Amino acid sequence: MTGPKELDNVRQDRPTGLSWRKRDPMNLKERIVEESLRLFTLKGFLSTSMNDILAASQASKGGFYNHFSSKEELFFDVLSVARKHWRRKNLVGMDRVDSPVEKLRIMLDNYRDRYLKDTERLPGGCPFIMLSVELADQKPALIKELNKGFSGLKKMIARLVEEGKEKGELGRKIDTVAVTELVFAGMLGASVMFGVDKSFTRLDAAIASLIDYLDSLAPKPTHNTQ
Amino acid sequence: MTGPKELDNVRQDRPTGLSWRKRDPMNLKERIVEESLRLFTLKGFLSTSMNDILAASQASKGGFYNHFSSKEELFFDVLSVARKHWRRKNLVGMDRVDSPVEKLRIMLDNYRDRYLKDTERLPGGCPFIMLSVELADQKPALIKELNKGFSGLKKMIARLVEEGKEKGELGRKIDTVAVTELVFAGMLGASVMFGVDKSFTRLDAAIASLIDYLDSLAPKPTHNTQ
Repeated sequence: MTGPKELDNVRQDRPTGLSWRKRDPMNLKERIVEESLRLFTLKGFLSTSMNDILAASQASKGGFYNHFSSKEELFFDVLSVARKHWRRKNLVGMDRVDSPVEKLRIMLDNYRDRYLKDTERLPGGCPFIMLSVELADQKPALIKELNKGFSGLKKMIARLVEEGKEKGELGRKIDTVAVTELVFAGMLGASVMFGVDKSFTRLDAAIASLIDYLDSLAPKPTHNTQ
Repeated sequence: MTGPKELDNVRQDRPTGLSWRKRDPMNLKERIVEESLRLFTLKGFLSTSMNDILAASQASKGGFYNHFSSKEELFFDVLSVARKHWRRKNLVGMDRVDSPVEKLRIMLDNYRDRYLKDTERLPGGCPFIMLSVELADQKPALIKELNKGFSGLKKMIARLVEEGKEKGELGRKIDTVAVTELVFAGMLGASVMFGVDKSFTRLDAAIASLIDYLDSLAPKPTHNTQ
């Protein structure tokens, strides 16, 4: 898909840019995708112009169309990179523990510390939220694709809640769907709010309350909130 | 601020438009604000052009600038109307009960049924979420204004949680900040997700899980999730 040819379009001494500089060498296609991810997250998909993309990735129009037939095609590549990034940041360490509830806790910690607070890589916050809010009523095909990611995360949470119940870490009578919805909505909401107020303290409080909530579902016979 | 003059700019037989038709007669300024609220919620503030606004409200440029010096000035009027709408929809019935926890339940029911599901008035979902996600890294002054609304909602939730503790409806040891953050994040997240998947079923489940969560904080000595 890529070759040395497109490097002709690039100034190797590009003075600005954050994400891709670290992973030099990156080919033109990768660079367009990386810079578009940053732009989409900051400005949204619709508000990011082709010129914004070309300028940020130091690509020519011809260089761009060598790799993508349209901005919408680029969208899917950007989404794929964003998903890999999400998994790399949020799932790390989960396989080192057996406890499903501990896995959920690790994911929530990762989400807060490794994913949302990593404002260098994603200065505009979580790209899935920006894109889903922006595109919800405008681009059904793109929303469908975004929704797959949300569904995947929900399925993972639901699976871990189920396993937690089976292993006796969570009360057997708790409603898996309800818990999943609340954890998921809590994650989404915390991310939206962090995007607005950029407050580490409040993000910490929101994620801590999600973890407290999970803890409150443990089947302790003496459990009492009073 | 408004007068009969600007009606000159309006075709009274305008065939489309939903929100303002019902409240006829509405003056030009009100109509611009109402239509802009719809547009901002569907497309965002930055992606809504002046031409979009003029076309939707059937205003002339002159008519617009009679009332607003800029799109940013319009933003504040739109926000004010959106806030009134939020309160009218979400707070109804809360004063009819004494119980603070019941007040919270009523608000969550309203949020789901009267506010989010009212897709005729707000076809693009909650305007505060659309605008805050869109503008987070682009318009600090507007974000500051949006943030006031979020803070106000959080303060109300926190106050009701505190009152619930005082009245013995919630366990005295529960952490008001944590509960507030979770309820607030849950509301935000449910709204984001509803915007994406438009699923009444999943919205119902998300709000139901928030209400279950509140119920789980009651100081029942025999409370046990197993």
